[in-house]
Amino acid sequence: MTPAVAHVVTVGVLPGGDAEGALVAAALGAAGVRVLSRALVEDDEAALQHALGPDDSLTVILAGAGGSAGDVVRRVLARATGARLVLHERMLAALEERYRRVDRPLPRRAERLALLPQGATVWVPAAGEPAWALESGARAFVVLPRDGAGAALEEHLVPFARARAAGHGAALTRTLRTAGVGAAALEERLAEWLGQPDRGAEVSVVPAEGEVWVRLRAPGASVEDAAQALAAVESAVAAALGADCYGRDAETLELVVGRRLLERGLTLAVAESCTGGLLGHRLTNVPGSSAYFERGVLVYSNRAKQELLGVPAEVLRAHGAVSAPCAEAMARGIVERAQSACGLAITGIAGPDGGTPAKPVGTVFVGLALGGAVTSRHFRFAGDRAQVKWHSTQMALDMLRRAL
Amino acid sequence: MTPAVAHVVTVGVLPGGDAEGALVAAALGAAGVRVLSRALVEDDEAALQHALGPDDSLTVILAGAGGSAGDVVRRVLARATGARLVLHERMLAALEERYRRVDRPLPRRAERLALLPQGATVWVPAAGEPAWALESGARAFVVLPRDGAGAALEEHLVPFARARAAGHGAALTRTLRTAGVGAAALEERLAEWLGQPDRGAEVSVVPAEGEVWVRLRAPGASVEDAAQALAAVESAVAAALGADCYGRDAETLELVVGRRLLERGLTLAVAESCTGGLLGHRLTNVPGSSAYFERGVLVYSNRAKQELLGVPAEVLRAHGAVSAPCAEAMARGIVERAQSACGLAITGIAGPDGGTPAKPVGTVFVGLALGGAVTSRHFRFAGDRAQVKWHSTQMALDMLRRAL
Repeated sequence: MTPAVAHVVTVGVLPGGDAEGALVAAALGAAGVRVLSRALVEDDEAALQHALGPDDSLTVILAGAGGSAGDVVRRVLARATGARLVLHERMLAALEERYRRVDRPLPRRAERLALLPQGATVWVPAAGEPAWALESGARAFVVLPRDGAGAALEEHLVPFARARAAGHGAALTRTLRTAGVGAAALEERLAEWLGQPDRGAEVSVVPAEGEVWVRLRAPGASVEDAAQALAAVESAVAAALGADCYGRDAETLELVVGRRLLERGLTLAVAESCTGGLLGHRLTNVPGSSAYFERGVLVYSNRAKQELLGVPAEVLRAHGAVSAPCAEAMARGIVERAQSACGLAITGIAGPDGGTPAKPVGTVFVGLALGGAVTSRHFRFAGDRAQVKWHSTQMALDMLRRAL
Repeated sequence: MTPAVAHVVTVGVLPGGDAEGALVAAALGAAGVRVLSRALVEDDEAALQHALGPDDSLTVILAGAGGSAGDVVRRVLARATGARLVLHERMLAALEERYRRVDRPLPRRAERLALLPQGATVWVPAAGEPAWALESGARAFVVLPRDGAGAALEEHLVPFARARAAGHGAALTRTLRTAGVGAAALEERLAEWLGQPDRGAEVSVVPAEGEVWVRLRAPGASVEDAAQALAAVESAVAAALGADCYGRDAETLELVVGRRLLERGLTLAVAESCTGGLLGHRLTNVPGSSAYFERGVLVYSNRAKQELLGVPAEVLRAHGAVSAPCAEAMARGIVERAQSACGLAITGIAGPDGGTPAKPVGTVFVGLALGGAVTSRHFRFAGDRAQVKWHSTQMALDMLRRAL
C-alpha cells in the first residue's frame, strides 16, 4: 500500500524563509501523510501550476494576504480542476464577520476573496482565518492563509489529512536528534539499520542544521499500524544511539536542557564572548525559561570580561581571551556573581578575522561551572561566522546536558 | 521577451531549513535569471522528478552528500533527458584528486559518483567540490553539492546563468527593506507604482520575516537593460519610502546600524530582558562588530537588573520591570557602566505567560541612551514568543538607526 502523500507550497516572498510551510509539513507528517516536498514559489500562475502535486496527492497551499497571491491561487486551482470561480456565501459571511469584529465594513476589494472554484468546501475555524479545500478525482487541494493558519490547521487540515492516511495507507516519520557525534560515526553504529526497509522502517542519517539527525520512516495500512512499526524500530535505534541522542522531532537542545534544569530546580547564568548572545537567545526561546535562566553577560571586550566576570588580567595576559583558563575564569565568574547553580561560558574566534596560526578561526573554549567544579573543553569548528557561533552554543548546551 | 527562468531544488532533509538553496537563488537572481520556485524535496525519485522545472527553464539541484540523494539525482536526470548513465573520466579524476589531498584512496562506493548522464559537463572549480551541468533541448540542469557549493557557484553557475539571461532575456529584482511602517501604509504611499508593470518594473509590497519589503522586478533584453530599468524605478520608489527604507537586498538592520556606528566611531552596549540575547546575537552576526559592540547584559531577573544596571528598587516597585522608567534606567545603567557612546535596553513580556490586563503579552519598552539623553518608546506586538522577541529587537535597532 502506498501511503498518502502531500506537497506543501507557500506562495510569495521567495527570498524569505518558510517557517509556516515547515509547521504545516510537520502537522501533516504527524497525521500519517508523507510530505514529499515543500516549496516557496513566486506569486506567478505558471510557477504555482508547476508546483501543484500530481494525481493522487494532497497539495496544501499557504497564500499570503499581501499582493495578488490569493488571486493567483484561486485562478490556478480553478484551471487545474476545470471549475468556474463562483461566489461562496459561506466564505463571504466568514469574511464579513471578521471585519465586523474590528468594527469595519468589508472593503469592496475583499469581496473577491469569496470567489472560489465551484465545489470548494469552506473551513471556518472557531477562531482565526477561514480556509478552503477542493477535491478533484484523487487530487486534493487545501488553501490556508499564510498568517494565522493555526486554527484551520488544527481544526480542519489535520482531520482531513488523517482521513486521507486512513484511505490511502499511512507513513509516520520520526527524527532522533543527536549532539556531539559525527555523521560517519553514526552511520557505522547504525549499519545494520541503514538501507534495510524490510526491518519495519527506513532509517537514514542526515546532517541538518548544525547537528546530525537520524530519521525513521515507517509505512502502515493505518496510522496505528505505522505507529507500531515505528515504535519498534525507534526503541532499538534509540538504544544504539544512547546518550548521544538528546531529543526527538521538534525537541531542541535548549528545550531539553531547560527541562532538566527545571526538574532539578537549578538556575543557570551564561557568559558569552564570541557567540554574542546566541546562547542566551536560544535558552530564552523556551517558554517558561525565566524559571531557571538567571542572567547573562555578553563580554565582547577584555575590559568587560574583567569588570563583569573578574577574569584576572594575568589570565588574559598569559593565555589570551581565547583560552581554557579564560573560559574557566568566565564560568567561575558568572556562577559566583549570579549566585546560580550552573554557569556556562564561551570564548572563541568566530571569524572571518581574528585568527592566528596558533588559534585559527573556529577555535572555541567552553567553560562549565557546576557543583563547585569548573571544567572546560577545546573545540575547533569549521564554517563561517554564523556556523561557528551556532556550533559553539550547541556544544556548550551539550556539555551542560551531559553534566546534568 | 520572456526572461530566463530557474527553479532551485534541494534534495533531502525536509524538516530542516534551506539556507543553501536561498544562496543559490540569490546568485541566480543577481545574474539576471528569474527564480520561480525554491523547493526542498524528499530523497525520492518521484518527488524529485515532479520538482524539475518545465521546458525552457534551468533547474539547479543541490544534493546532500549523505544518504542516496546523489543516486536519486543521477537516475532522475538520466530518465528526464533520455540519456544513459556513463562513467565520466573527468569527474572520476576530480574525485580521486580530492581523496588524494587527504591522503586516502577513493572508496569503491564513491566511484558511482562519477556515473553521470551522457552529455553532462563536469565543472571542476579551482578549490571546492566538483559539480555538473546537463542541457537537453531548451531545458538545463545543474547539480551542485549541498555542502561546499560556493566555488562551483561562483566560477561556473553564475557565468552559465548570465549566458542564459543573455540568450533568453533577463530579469533583475531588488528588495527595499523597511522598518517602522506597516504594509497597508506602504501600499497607500506606493499606490501609483503597484500593479503598473508598464512603468518599467513590477512593484509589490510583501510582509516578510517580521518586516515589510518592497520588491521590484524589472525585465530587459539583457542584464544591462534590466539594470537600467530597475535603477530608474528604484530611485523613485526609494525616494517615496524615505527614511523608512533602511537597506536593500541582503542588508539587515543590524548591518546598517553597525555601519553607521563604525562611520561615526561610536560604541554600543545593550541591556536585554525579554529578548534574552537576541539583540546581542543579531549585532554580533555582523563580521567586524567587535569594533563597536562593547558588551551586553541579559537581565532576566529583577536582581540582575539592580546588580548589573543599578535600576533603582523604587522604579521596580512603583512601575514594575516592564515600564518606561525601567527601560530608561536600564539604558542609562548600561551606557554608564560600559562607558559606551550608545546604550539600548529592552524590557517586556514575550509570553506565552506573564501578561496582565494592564500589560498584556507583547507589551515592550525600548530605552535608548545617546549623547547624554535617554528616551523610551512603548510597543504592543502581536504574535508568539519568537515574534515578540524579533519585533522588539527590530524596533530597538530601528530607534537607534533613526537616532544616528
